[in-house]
Amino acid sequence: MHYFSINEIKEWDRFYRANFINSLQGFKPVSLLGTVNEKGQPNLAIFSNIVHLGADPALIGFINRPIEAAPHTLHNIEVTGEYTINHIQPSFIKAAHQTSAKYPAEQNEFTATGLTPIFLENCKAPFVAESAIKYALQLVEIVPITHNQTFLVIGTITHVFLEEGLVKQDGFIDAHKAKSITSLGIDGYYSTEPIGRFEYAKPNKEVKKLLEE
Amino acid sequence: MHYFSINEIKEWDRFYRANFINSLQGFKPVSLLGTVNEKGQPNLAIFSNIVHLGADPALIGFINRPIEAAPHTLHNIEVTGEYTINHIQPSFIKAAHQTSAKYPAEQNEFTATGLTPIFLENCKAPFVAESAIKYALQLVEIVPITHNQTFLVIGTITHVFLEEGLVKQDGFIDAHKAKSITSLGIDGYYSTEPIGRFEYAKPNKEVKKLLEE
Repeated sequence: MHYFSINEIKEWDRFYRANFINSLQGFKPVSLLGTVNEKGQPNLAIFSNIVHLGADPALIGFINRPIEAAPHTLHNIEVTGEYTINHIQPSFIKAAHQTSAKYPAEQNEFTATGLTPIFLENCKAPFVAESAIKYALQLVEIVPITHNQTFLVIGTITHVFLEEGLVKQDGFIDAHKAKSITSLGIDGYYSTEPIGRFEYAKPNKEVKKLLEE
Repeated sequence: MHYFSINEIKEWDRFYRANFINSLQGFKPVSLLGTVNEKGQPNLAIFSNIVHLGADPALIGFINRPIEAAPHTLHNIEVTGEYTINHIQPSFIKAAHQTSAKYPAEQNEFTATGLTPIFLENCKAPFVAESAIKYALQLVEIVPITHNQTFLVIGTITHVFLEEGLVKQDGFIDAHKAKSITSLGIDGYYSTEPIGRFEYAKPNKEVKKLLEE
């Protein structure tokens, strides 16, 4: 194994370090966040730091970078209280990645990338029509992370839209069948292959069974 | 598309709802968290709600469920201030999943599952010897999420151990080459296939190029 101490990592070039630390955590649920500003102008941006907080109430969080680096989505959520999260499929991955460009506030990323905004169920925020799995949230709380000026934005799920045929008999949503992608680091995108679903684990002593494939 | 309102979702059986909401977010960076208690007894538990907070300082967060549901890892981190996060490879996925069983506090999950604890660089917390990508963190802050009694546990990276040959020329860690898995929902595990790494996006107007594959 190769060992890296944080003191060594701190000395690296910032782009090298950013690639390293951003990919250390492993595969991420990359998605497109849709919002509108106070004038109703849509904004669309790619986010990968999304985290499940709980099923009941149905809460999802995402990390917003410091306000100088990523102002538009957070501003729009503060103003309207609503946003959408849209899975990314391979057919529009280039357009999805392009939303990471630093467009000015007055630029609508749907127009810039060719993705289709769609307004559903009286949500103020636009969904991505091309996305196979998408949901809307209502803002619950913006928690400042004081150590690096980021924010944990907590929302409660209000509406869910899924392509037909994705929900299994037990409620599991087959994001693999939907071809939803996962990301690694800042710029790596991956499809998935199922390994399996495992039964609810109970304490046992059958040690030897567990490590041999 | 099929539409689900939150009012409909709230009426569902709790297991069906848990499967649905847990998989809605998409693919997750599932890993094993290693800790020790005040007596030095190791604990190992599988967590999928891990989120990158920033590269400099190098901060990673994870969501701990309410204390009644998941007391041991959080207790140990509060006591020692240290923990490890270890990627999961297919060769020990059954053992990794088995750590989700509700073992009593006095049960060492390494012993129960056959995984190998390894103590490195004076970290109090054990790493998983079998893991190809693993890192240690020092506790920075435990942020209570008041809406559902969960916790965002924030740590700063102190040590990183990687199998040889995983770091690309620009610092990117090839977790696909390491065969690190990703998870979906409560119990689904997946391997990955590379789609590609994309260039840093700059504002452009070449709309038509982006949607056609």
